[in-house]
Amino acid sequence: MNNDFTEQDPVKLYTLHRTASRMLPGRNAPIGIFDSGVGGLTVTREVMRQIPEERIVYFGDTARVPYGSKSRETVIRYSRQNIRFLKTRGVKAIVIACNTASAHAIETVAAESDIPIIGVIYAGAKTAVNSTKNKRIGIIGTAGTVASNIYPHVIAQMDGNVKVYQKACPLFVPLAEEGMTDDPLTKEIAARYLQEIKDVGVDTLVLGCTHYPLLRSVIREAVGENVTLVNPAYETALELKALLKRENLLNDGKDDADGKDKYEFYVSDLAEKFTDFANSILPNDVTNTKKIEIEEY
Amino acid sequence: MNNDFTEQDPVKLYTLHRTASRMLPGRNAPIGIFDSGVGGLTVTREVMRQIPEERIVYFGDTARVPYGSKSRETVIRYSRQNIRFLKTRGVKAIVIACNTASAHAIETVAAESDIPIIGVIYAGAKTAVNSTKNKRIGIIGTAGTVASNIYPHVIAQMDGNVKVYQKACPLFVPLAEEGMTDDPLTKEIAARYLQEIKDVGVDTLVLGCTHYPLLRSVIREAVGENVTLVNPAYETALELKALLKRENLLNDGKDDADGKDKYEFYVSDLAEKFTDFANSILPNDVTNTKKIEIEEY
Repeated sequence: MNNDFTEQDPVKLYTLHRTASRMLPGRNAPIGIFDSGVGGLTVTREVMRQIPEERIVYFGDTARVPYGSKSRETVIRYSRQNIRFLKTRGVKAIVIACNTASAHAIETVAAESDIPIIGVIYAGAKTAVNSTKNKRIGIIGTAGTVASNIYPHVIAQMDGNVKVYQKACPLFVPLAEEGMTDDPLTKEIAARYLQEIKDVGVDTLVLGCTHYPLLRSVIREAVGENVTLVNPAYETALELKALLKRENLLNDGKDDADGKDKYEFYVSDLAEKFTDFANSILPNDVTNTKKIEIEEY
Repeated sequence: MNNDFTEQDPVKLYTLHRTASRMLPGRNAPIGIFDSGVGGLTVTREVMRQIPEERIVYFGDTARVPYGSKSRETVIRYSRQNIRFLKTRGVKAIVIACNTASAHAIETVAAESDIPIIGVIYAGAKTAVNSTKNKRIGIIGTAGTVASNIYPHVIAQMDGNVKVYQKACPLFVPLAEEGMTDDPLTKEIAARYLQEIKDVGVDTLVLGCTHYPLLRSVIREAVGENVTLVNPAYETALELKALLKRENLLNDGKDDADGKDKYEFYVSDLAEKFTDFANSILPNDVTNTKKIEIEEY
């Protein structure tokens, strides 16, 4: 494995801007997480599990969901607005909990930022490269993520001998949002989408869309027991923890009693529907989702 | 049938604003049509067939698609922006070729407008009421259209004795956009969605989403031969023609040689993808799709 991929590591990019004059948020500031909608809650769940002492501000862009079918340019514009909003909430670091936005926007927005911004692609790709024995990795995601070729690009930087096979699965998100996570039709669609990936004999498959962990069991059934499933949500939470530690930004627990909500949720539309979905997948009760006008940021 | 529903007829509302001072577009100005994306092309196709002499400016809001899962407030805001854009193109009348936007926004935007604006709901509902013998009408559409209760509301104004049965079919749009219009899985999903509608014995079914005519054959198979399928796209084109005639706004063919494109297409994202889809369903070649920044309007 070639470890010489510092140039591609977006985690490092923000440091270029550390000379900026504004007072940066301290260690007890919250973490910002954004996604095109509800999918990023799978990442949020992992962050809550891995670093339970951290405060979180989540933004779900439910007015403009989905990002997966939109252009690079549009997704970058939306990501910049989302980041500007999260910065108004005083966050100390940002996680782009959306594969499409990570794919299109991470390099641009990380290079513009004075606080660390990480996406979900890098950690997932690194874990997949470390996991594969036969040097064949499968990637499933939205049309946007697949067309961006970000996973093959990042993986090639890490290990030029790995072959990457990609497949867009556009029906997975609506099926997950319809709650059809254990439906025979979903199984049939999964079997069909994943046949090619199976045929080429990958031993590792990246769930390259934050909704896909919700379909984990049908995906497992379709690819069989011998394929390692990589969930970038989990890997990203670990990467975030390591990053905060390295930067001396881990919450020290000394500033919790100031009356702020530990977890804040914001959306650009339909707060109530979001709250229902969030309560179905997060360990803590979500009661305080607020709607904001994201186009004003 | 009670014909006393003038209050609910949005076609009439714009006349309140005819006193506005601006010079209104003349009879040879184009018709504006907008939709959340590509679905409205089924309406455009019918307008091209029914009134082939008319010029058309189409706007597909592909950056913010879909509208079906968004709130009333958001859909009204988007519709206002889309209308402001179409007015910059000098249109003489506007068709909201999207059931969700028609459901949420037509009354608001028609009441604000100095040119006629019609939606797809009213014409479809009227045809269904005229068609049903057993006074049982089914409506299928997006979650947004169904939740708005616009069809039951409009139909109740037309005939209080009609029973309306609604069913949201959220997977139909992604299935149509995946091109799975003749797939066994789509048939299975259609059978499942339409079972309730079939069980209550409707004799008329409104295809209450502009994508659904693309799935007409699987819907036909699911409901059987004895149910009349109402396609609001067709009915709306007829209504538009009657409206233009009544208002003396039909194109007289005397202003065609001024170098303007007869059909203009604009989108808010991914012009190329739109052009491909448009060419698969429109009779004329689409070559000139332009991308605009809809949030600036």
